[in-house]
Amino acid sequence: MVDLMGRDTEPDLTEMMAGIGHHARAAAAALARSSAATRDAALAGAAALLRARAAQILEANAQDLANAEERGVSAALLDRLRLDEARVEAMARGVEEIRALPDPLGRVLAEWSRPNGLRIRRVSVPLGVIGIIYESRPNVTADAGALCLKAGNAVILRGGSESFASSCAIHACIADALAAAGLPREAVQMVPTRDRAAVGELLRGLGGAVDVVVPRGGRSLIERVQRDARVPVIGHLEGICHVYVDGAADLEMAVGIVLNSKMRRTGICGAAETLLVDRACAATHLAPLVAALLKAGCEVRGDAATQAVDARVLPAVESDWHTEYLDAVISVRVVDGVAEASRHIARYGSGHTESIVTGDAGAAARFLDEVDSAIVLHNASTQFADGGEFGMGAEIGISTGRIHARGPVGTEQLTSFKYQVFGAGQLRP
Amino acid sequence: MVDLMGRDTEPDLTEMMAGIGHHARAAAAALARSSAATRDAALAGAAALLRARAAQILEANAQDLANAEERGVSAALLDRLRLDEARVEAMARGVEEIRALPDPLGRVLAEWSRPNGLRIRRVSVPLGVIGIIYESRPNVTADAGALCLKAGNAVILRGGSESFASSCAIHACIADALAAAGLPREAVQMVPTRDRAAVGELLRGLGGAVDVVVPRGGRSLIERVQRDARVPVIGHLEGICHVYVDGAADLEMAVGIVLNSKMRRTGICGAAETLLVDRACAATHLAPLVAALLKAGCEVRGDAATQAVDARVLPAVESDWHTEYLDAVISVRVVDGVAEASRHIARYGSGHTESIVTGDAGAAARFLDEVDSAIVLHNASTQFADGGEFGMGAEIGISTGRIHARGPVGTEQLTSFKYQVFGAGQLRP
Repeated sequence: MVDLMGRDTEPDLTEMMAGIGHHARAAAAALARSSAATRDAALAGAAALLRARAAQILEANAQDLANAEERGVSAALLDRLRLDEARVEAMARGVEEIRALPDPLGRVLAEWSRPNGLRIRRVSVPLGVIGIIYESRPNVTADAGALCLKAGNAVILRGGSESFASSCAIHACIADALAAAGLPREAVQMVPTRDRAAVGELLRGLGGAVDVVVPRGGRSLIERVQRDARVPVIGHLEGICHVYVDGAADLEMAVGIVLNSKMRRTGICGAAETLLVDRACAATHLAPLVAALLKAGCEVRGDAATQAVDARVLPAVESDWHTEYLDAVISVRVVDGVAEASRHIARYGSGHTESIVTGDAGAAARFLDEVDSAIVLHNASTQFADGGEFGMGAEIGISTGRIHARGPVGTEQLTSFKYQVFGAGQLRP
Repeated sequence: MVDLMGRDTEPDLTEMMAGIGHHARAAAAALARSSAATRDAALAGAAALLRARAAQILEANAQDLANAEERGVSAALLDRLRLDEARVEAMARGVEEIRALPDPLGRVLAEWSRPNGLRIRRVSVPLGVIGIIYESRPNVTADAGALCLKAGNAVILRGGSESFASSCAIHACIADALAAAGLPREAVQMVPTRDRAAVGELLRGLGGAVDVVVPRGGRSLIERVQRDARVPVIGHLEGICHVYVDGAADLEMAVGIVLNSKMRRTGICGAAETLLVDRACAATHLAPLVAALLKAGCEVRGDAATQAVDARVLPAVESDWHTEYLDAVISVRVVDGVAEASRHIARYGSGHTESIVTGDAGAAARFLDEVDSAIVLHNASTQFADGGEFGMGAEIGISTGRIHARGPVGTEQLTSFKYQVFGAGQLRP
């Protein structure tokens, strides 16, 4: 805003954010009383508006891209930032898919009776107010907003400053659709400033208005969130995922799973970063696995045994085992069976997703029990770590935390519950 | 410890606490691999040792009591601190009851198959490392230690400084029983210092070693925890519980439920603090309800309508609606039906437990849907807000948070889960 002297003035940020929190809380109460049909109507409306306003959204996006190019950002960031007609259409379709999911609210999660005649029922209810902090991808504005809304939650969106104009245009579609459906516009709010201090305010919970924060972004964002949050956080630090090829693995299956886990898409959190090969099959399996990776264009960094099978293998150093490459690079190590594989994963893994390839049911059972990650797979690609692939519908991310939600976070994970108790005058003795 | 000059020196607290965290993490890994039978054997052993060492425990308790008396603490605190043979026996029996609960680990929470043949299973696993911060009651050492252990979690106990000697004696029973069962003693650790800075260290998570903190105590403890915690917290701020007597309530049932909710035990979090009476039945129900409360020895603070029915009713002021008396005091207000009752509860309640008394099924359904508390009851006393009464076994408290656990927190709520996925070589397209 511009003051009387014509200077730009920041409105008081803390006060503005408190207002956003207050509105969110009120909207959450209205959403909790709304019907699934009303929330679905708002989602359908948002999808329609995203399509109808594609030109405006792309215009705002062009502005963001021009600003970003001027500031000389990386090509990768420009790509994440860029929208086109296909991406806007994908966003609209994503919102429609979320709309089509079953209502996650009012589910009877458990029901039982007590000897004194009390009947107890655990029923799903909205979480409340969710803060989403994300980076450059403007489509998160639509995805995250729609997911939270489907589960009856009010949401406060804090997108990256690079995508500010795009996100505002997308957000306007959702807010207008909410109003058209008779729901408060404030059910989905966007923080209307690029000021980074707003993130701190959100992480402190806006005076109790925020029930949970979901960060979506790179390591530095997640670390800031973990350091500064005073409210519960659902998120994941990183995905250092492992494939362990056991002595009893079928070679062909192992090659397929390793290539798919690493190379299908290298930039997603479920991509494998480390291959562990059982010493029991190293003589037969290691060379073909390495050859297949190299042939697929993957850089291989290995321990001494792995370097020995191919001259193109670079030496792996300690930091390689800790690294989420998110790129066509893999670290490879020979280990002594499930026991050492599971120790390696406990030491270097991030608790995200790990896979064992083996024909030995006992080895598989041991791996699936002992490895303490959100997702453990037997004879399948780590790239299945995804809410859609799990049949849970759209997701807001994969949680590596152990509290509330672990693994894919979809609409069901964005709910809480309450106990409803039915009596006939019972008193406690 | 004593240094070379003969002075008392505190060992470096941060370093000591980090060591506790490190040991807890290692113990958690061992517990996750242990069998239910082994954990149950440790619990049985702990109960036996509590009985066998009752004299030592009471001796330690006498020391705590003498210190506390010397410092002139309140009679109420002395009572919470005091153990006798019956209380030690109750502790041992409590540990045995927890042992007898079903194993909360390895439960298949959900299981489904995907069109591509993947079979997905959600299985309960331990939460990991739990920090418990509590106040004067030494029995929490046994209860909380046993509950966490039953669910396969390592626990770090930080009791009140007043009960330090008693808690050490109780803790020794558990640690010795763990060792006798072949489990690491460090599965249940007690912070071996009265230094309050240790609480801060625990709340900061000991370098990632602590997965969740559970506070048990009064408002000042909970507020410190909410302010300083950098790890997830499961706990409750307070229990401002309401009974709403609807226009269609049976008077006799209403009197019974109000008296039981308020007076059965006034000091527990599920005790009612406010009575709301529907204007529709105030003419017939208000006076007998107030008379019954006064007759039972309860102080009544009311709005104008309530003061009008009995001269002994004191005027309620704004702060009364916010107050958890934990005493024989109740605030009473006349409201316009379910709508105003539910608005009053949203404004002043703490999201713990509320009850409606009514013969009108529609009013009950509306109250149970609209009121956003962990527990909402129809025609039953708020004092049923208890894990044991819910049939969940022993509990560590009632959570008023919305994340992970809401309502009674028993062994099941002290678990996390993971996804086990069974394939036959599936690759993601």
